[in-house]
Formats: sequence, structure tokens, C-alpha cells
Amino acid sequence: MKKIIGVMGPGKKATDSDLKNAYEIGKFCAEQEWVVLTGGLKDGVMNEALKGAKENNGLTLGILPGDDKQFFSEYLDLAIPTNMRGGRNYINALSSDLVLACGMGAGTSSEISLSIKSGKKVILVGLFDEANNFYRKLGNELTYIAKDYTEAIDILKKELK
Amino acid sequence: MKKIIGVMGPGKKATDSDLKNAYEIGKFCAEQEWVVLTGGLKDGVMNEALKGAKENNGLTLGILPGDDKQFFSEYLDLAIPTNMRGGRNYINALSSDLVLACGMGAGTSSEISLSIKSGKKVILVGLFDEANNFYRKLGNELTYIAKDYTEAIDILKKELK
Amino acid sequence: MKKIIGVMGPGKKATDSDLKNAYEIGKFCAEQEWVVLTGGLKDGVMNEALKGAKENNGLTLGILPGDDKQFFSEYLDLAIPTNMRGGRNYINALSSDLVLACGMGAGTSSEISLSIKSGKKVILVGLFDEANNFYRKLGNELTYIAKDYTEAIDILKKELK
Amino acid sequence: MKKIIGVMGPGKKATDSDLKNAYEIGKFCAEQEWVVLTGGLKDGVMNEALKGAKENNGLTLGILPGDDKQFFSEYLDLAIPTNMRGGRNYINALSSDLVLACGMGAGTSSEISLSIKSGKKVILVGLFDEANNFYRKLGNELTYIAKDYTEAIDILKKELK
Repeated sequence: MKKIIGVMGPGKKATDSDLKNAYEIGKFCAEQEWVVLTGGLKDGVMNEALKGAKENNGLTLGILPGDDKQFFSEYLDLAIPTNMRGGRNYINALSSDLVLACGMGAGTSSEISLSIKSGKKVILVGLFDEANNFYRKLGNELTYIAKDYTEAIDILKKELK
Repeated sequence: MKKIIGVMGPGKKATDSDLKNAYEIGKFCAEQEWVVLTGGLKDGVMNEALKGAKENNGLTLGILPGDDKQFFSEYLDLAIPTNMRGGRNYINALSSDLVLACGMGAGTSSEISLSIKSGKKVILVGLFDEANNFYRKLGNELTYIAKDYTEAIDILKKELK
Repeated sequence: MKKIIGVMGPGKKATDSDLKNAYEIGKFCAEQEWVVLTGGLKDGVMNEALKGAKENNGLTLGILPGDDKQFFSEYLDLAIPTNMRGGRNYINALSSDLVLACGMGAGTSSEISLSIKSGKKVILVGLFDEANNFYRKLGNELTYIAKDYTEAIDILKKELK
Repeated sequence: MKKIIGVMGPGKKATDSDLKNAYEIGKFCAEQEWVVLTGGLKDGVMNEALKGAKENNGLTLGILPGDDKQFFSEYLDLAIPTNMRGGRNYINALSSDLVLACGMGAGTSSEISLSIKSGKKVILVGLFDEANNFYRKLGNELTYIAKDYTEAIDILKKELK
């Protein structure tokens, strides 16, 4: 079975550094031959992580909120439409061996929460202090904090190799 | 259509004050003839909110993670088993006119996150600072902070009457 | 805990006799003080079963595919929006003590199938021969066949009293 | 995006010819470089279709009812655990470009029903007359009937090439 890395984060509200972090993490995962999983839409962190993987010969997987293909990322190899909207966030968590958050919003927060609930390790990448402090408290030894993609990749190397 | 108030919070890890807050909020909702919705299990905040409502002639509703009746609260009028485990947290959020958190854990965090994502107002009752600070930032004008059930009830009165 | 009867059937494609059967079964359930559960939309069998119950002082419950209130039946007491589209059909099956089909289409067929899969008894009301023959074979001793609402009510009386 | 073929059918109750049909269809899909999707468990048709694909260098995908790895097929490349039990049947339907049933039971029936509901073409392989007659009526021009895997493969060739 292939290793699957979930990269979560904002869609349209992602910042430039969220997008950069997502792309570089997607690229790194592809180089390790790990599958990159996201929410599958053509926006923000979802799209950039898939792009980073795809442009580096990775295999990409999207668990989509709806089934309208016009919203799918062009960098998807495998599209799993759920028609479950935010309910699919739980499947994102369950399907990933480890989950990263590049940026934070309410949807991403639900994914990190459900990942911790499911016993998955999470890496928070470049988040604001209030998020780091909350999830460190909530997730305890499951939560890693990274300033940017280079720190996140160092953690991935230790955790998954 | 009846008004539905969601009361979320820890199961076995709930503190005494979480339980007290849940019971009193359930009781208050019953007195207003609002339906009390929880995750439906016989543990912790879920059970106490239902008990508070039921012992005061309220109507109670549970959206259950599984379908094994031995885990259902005895204070349920209406049991909706989903067999979706944590995936049902999204339905809790969507079905409630307003969502309260009496205590905090990873499951509750996902419910508050998904409530904010769905545009629902949330009241955080008696939580630690890191949670209040995070959700105030995440939810902005949707997030209310209450020290205990008396403050929560004051907010409910303003919001829903 | 209240007894919940699920009444399934087509929306816009329901026939006049499907609607009549749904209304009368909803009415009968209300008279027994059983809760009537449907898919909750304002169309077809869903709406008529709720109407039959509501006009006879019953309590009504809808497990809705989406959260847009303009599509909700006006006869709903309790609306549970899932945003799961057809995925909510499984919850309809799990939440009902017994499931009736007033008319048949692809959605209804999934609900009857999932009811049988979950060990629930089903009553097929006024269906075409191919449906009766298939579900008698599939469901075996879980499947009852009724010509119309009077036969269905006779079966309900035996099964649930 | 890769083409995904869903192969549905009984688990422990599959007959020898169901298993043979599943294996050969999985093999054929792999030869076309189509991804084989099943419910992902190590039983019956799910396992054989994945085995047929995997032993012929195909890529395999499972949408699993639970997250306990001891029940996963060993022929899975990509495991998507949903913890949704029968609710995942809808995702099987939505994720497939075309759905085949090798054998019939209540779970498979829900998958074929939800596939038709979602506008997907279905091929019924080696089923009993009552199933063929029912689904031909329900699915109309979406339903194909095949005696065995050779006929099913002929239909696949026409439909997907």
C-alpha cells in the first residue's frame, strides 16, 4: 500500500507563503514516491500541493466535496467525488498517514481536529500563534509546529522514513 | 419548524463544570421549547445536556456515530444513527441553529470548526484561554465566549429570542 | 425513545396513488404517535407523508440531502440537513424502525437496499412486479408486499404493535 | 485524470463464477491502464477484482467502510477508509466512470441503484433474472446485461474506448 500524505489549507484565502509551502511539500512527497492527497479543488493550497507533486512525477489524489468537474484541480490523477461537502474532511483525515496544514481556516481546522481525533500526526506549517498554541494543547504529542516548508520537510523525513 | 440547539463537548473526559454547564443549558433550552441536539451517546456532555432537557419536558435528538443502542443516552427521544463515526460531526453542525461547546477536545473542536464553516454562531462555555483565543480569531463575529452556563444563557436569550 | 417510521418514494415522479399511499400512511403513523421520517424535501412522497402526519398532529422528521431551506417541506418539525446528497439515504434506513416504499425510483431503491442490508423490515406499497420480485428475492423474510396503503397499514399493525 | 472502473459484488457470499468474473474484469481493466475501484475489503468480489488488476500491473483503489487495516485487501495500492459503513457505497458510485456488479446482494444493490441515480452506466454480470429485469426497468438505457466477463468486457470496450 502506498503512503498517503494529506496537505490541507485554505482555498481562495491562501496567502503566498501558504501556496509556496504547499507546492514545495507536494514536490518533496512526489520525490519520496508518496501519494499527495488534498481536498481536490482547483483553488489555493489544494491545487498547489497537487501541482507540486504532479510536476515532479508524483501520484495525486483528491477527495472532493462535490462532483462538478469544473471545480476539480487539473493536477489530479485520481478524483474521488463524495458529494458530502465538509463531511469529506473526515475522509481526508482518515486516508492520510500524516496531515499537514499550510494555512488555517475553519475547514482546515476541522481537518486538523479530526486528524488528531483519529490519532494521526499533524504538522502545522507557518500558522499564527493562536493556532499553534491551541493545537499544541489539543493534540499534545501528535502536533508538530513548523515555521515553513523546510522545517516541515525535516519533520516528514524523521516521521516517515 | 422547531428551533434546534446543539450542545457539544467531551464524552468521558468532561469535567464536573462541563457537565453542570451542559445540564443547565439543556434545561434552559427545554424551558424555551427548543429541541436539544447532541452526539447522542450516554457519556459526558452529550448525556447531561439531554438529561437537563428531558427532565424539564424538552424534546431531545441525538445524531449518533454508530447504531449500537447500548451506547445511546437514555434521555433521547429521537435517535438518528449515522454509522459515520466522526463524519456525523458535520451533521451536528448543520442541524443546529446555534452550537455550544461545554468543554473541548478534538471531536468538539471539529464540531465548532464545521459550525463556523457553515456560518453558525457558536458559544464557547468555560473553555481554556488557548481555545477562546483561537476560535475568536477563526470565527470572528460568529464566536461568543461565556465563562459558564449563566453567561451562555444570557447570550442565548439575546441571539434566539 | 420514540418509534420512527421511514416513508420513502419518488419526488417529482411520484404517481397519484403513490401520493395517496404516502399521505394515508403518514396519517396512520401520527395516530399511533409514531414519528414519520422522510428525505424531507417538498416534493412527492416525502412531502405527502409528512403532510399526512402533520395534519393529524404527528411529529415529523426529515433527513435532508442539502441545507437550502427553500427545498424543505413545510410539514417538517425537525430538519436534519446533511449536505450528503444521496449519501443520506443510508441514514434514512438506519434511523427508521421500519421502512416503506411508496413508489420506486433509483433513490428509493438504494434506500430499500440499505434498509435490508441493515436488517430492517421493509414494506413495498403499490410497486410494479419487477420490483416486488427482486426485493422478495433480495430481502427474503424482511420484505413485505402491499397492494396499497390499507394493506400496508395492516402489516404495520402486526409488525409494530 | 485516470479512468476509474468500479467493480461491486458480494463479499463472503460471492459464488465461484462471481469471483472469476471479478478477477477477469480486474485484469482487463489493468491491461487498459484503467484504475480498479472496489469497496476494498479482503473478501469476495472486492478482493478478486483488485487481485486481477494488481497481478497484471494495474493501479487499485479501495473505498473502505472502516479503518481497521486487518480487513483491507492485500491487493490495494490506495486505501481510502471512510468509517461510513454502507454510506461509502455512494462514494463508490460517484467515483467510478462505470460500475459493474459481479453478483448481487443488498449492499451491491444499493451501489447499482446509487450509480443509476448518479447517471452512471452499469453492467450487470451473471445475475439472476429478477435483478436483471428490475434494473433494466429502473435504469433503462444506463443498464447493460452481461452473461459473464467476456460479454462484460465487450461492453466495456465499446463504452470506454
